[in-house]
Amino acid sequence: MRLRNVKNKEEIMRESDSLIVNPTNYKGKWKEYFNNDNPIYVEIGMGKGKFIVENALNNPDINYIGIEKYDSVVAKALQKIDKKLDNLVMVRADANIIQDIFDYEVTCIYLNFSDPWPKNRHHLRRLSSSVFLEKYESIFVKKKRIEMRTDNRLLFQYSLVSFSEAGYTLKEVYLDYHQDNMPSITTEYEDKFAGNGMPIYYVRCEKDCH
Amino acid sequence: MRLRNVKNKEEIMRESDSLIVNPTNYKGKWKEYFNNDNPIYVEIGMGKGKFIVENALNNPDINYIGIEKYDSVVAKALQKIDKKLDNLVMVRADANIIQDIFDYEVTCIYLNFSDPWPKNRHHLRRLSSSVFLEKYESIFVKKKRIEMRTDNRLLFQYSLVSFSEAGYTLKEVYLDYHQDNMPSITTEYEDKFAGNGMPIYYVRCEKDCH
Repeated sequence: MRLRNVKNKEEIMRESDSLIVNPTNYKGKWKEYFNNDNPIYVEIGMGKGKFIVENALNNPDINYIGIEKYDSVVAKALQKIDKKLDNLVMVRADANIIQDIFDYEVTCIYLNFSDPWPKNRHHLRRLSSSVFLEKYESIFVKKKRIEMRTDNRLLFQYSLVSFSEAGYTLKEVYLDYHQDNMPSITTEYEDKFAGNGMPIYYVRCEKDCH
Repeated sequence: MRLRNVKNKEEIMRESDSLIVNPTNYKGKWKEYFNNDNPIYVEIGMGKGKFIVENALNNPDINYIGIEKYDSVVAKALQKIDKKLDNLVMVRADANIIQDIFDYEVTCIYLNFSDPWPKNRHHLRRLSSSVFLEKYESIFVKKKRIEMRTDNRLLFQYSLVSFSEAGYTLKEVYLDYHQDNMPSITTEYEDKFAGNGMPIYYVRCEKDCH
C-alpha cells in the first residue's frame, strides 16, 4: 500500500473507541470483549477498512476484527466509522504476532490484497506462506476457513499450493471473480483494479479440526 | 476438437502396429505388453498426438499410452509416428471405460485441453469431475499424479476444487504457464492458443496411496 501520512493520526487513534493497540491483552477473551458468542472474522491487513466496515454493518451477528500495522492506514480506517459499532474493532498490530492475539477464537480469516512480496527469498513473509499458516493453527476455532482475494497472479498461484500443502481443501476458486461471481462487498484496491479491467483472483479454503 | 474426417482412417488404423482397439484385453498386463517395468504415463484425450509422441521420443524410460475416442483423430495421431516406438501405444477408447483398461498400473495422467463441457448440468462429464476421479482411483499405482493444462478458465477453477476435494494436494499451479514456466513439449491446441496470447493454465497435483 502506498502510504500517505495522516497528520493528526495520533489524535484520531487516541480518541477512537474502535481501536485496540494492546491486543495481546485480549487473547482468549474476545468473547468477553464483544459480550456475545457470535463468530469472529478477522481481516489481516484491513487497509483503509472499507471491506470490514461494510461487512460489520451488513452482518450484525458476526464480530469483525480488522488488523493493520501502519498508524496512518489505521487512522484512515477509523475515519470510516461514524460511531462505534458493537461488532467491529480495529487492531493496530503486526500480523507476525497474530498467535499472541487469539487463542482458538477465530472462525474466518480474510486476506485481501496482501503484500505479494514478489522476491522468492521473501516468500515466507507472504501471509499465505507456511510460516503464517502455522501461526493461524492456534487462532482458529474448530473448522478453519481462509478467504483470499488478490490481483497478483504469482501470489495467488503460490497461495493455492501453500493452502493445499497445509491440508486446506479448496472449496471455491475464481480466476476472474468479478466476472464470475461479483461480490457485494469489495475493498478499495479491488474497486480500483477491477475498474481497470484486471482480473481479481479469489479462493475460499477450509480445513477441519482434528 | 473440430473433427475433420480422415478419408482412409480405417486403413490407417488397421495397418498400424501402434494402435490398440481392444484395450480392455490388456488390463493388468501393460507391463507384459511393454516388456519392462518402466512407469506408465497416460494422456486421456491425446488429440492429434503431438504431446505424447514428443514425450515418448524424449523419455525412452517412460511408457506412454495415448487415449482418444474419435477414429479420425486417432488416425491423425497415428500419422505422426514414422515407425513403431517401443514406449508408445495409442488406444482408441472412450475415457468412460478407463477403469476397465488399467488395474493399478498408471503413474501419471495427463489431461490436456480436455472438453470443458461448459454447461453446469454436464459437469460430471468433465475429465476432472468426481465421477472420473473415482474411476482413476483404481488405475493408479501407488502415488497418484495428474497434470492438467487448459485455456478454459471455468474448467480450470472447477478442476482445482475438484482435485482438492478428492484429496489431491496441489503441488504446482500456473495461471499463465507459458509466461511463468515455458514447457518444452506442448500440444497442438496449446501452440495455437498461446500463440494468440491467451493464458494457459497448468496444475500438477498428487495424492498418496493409503
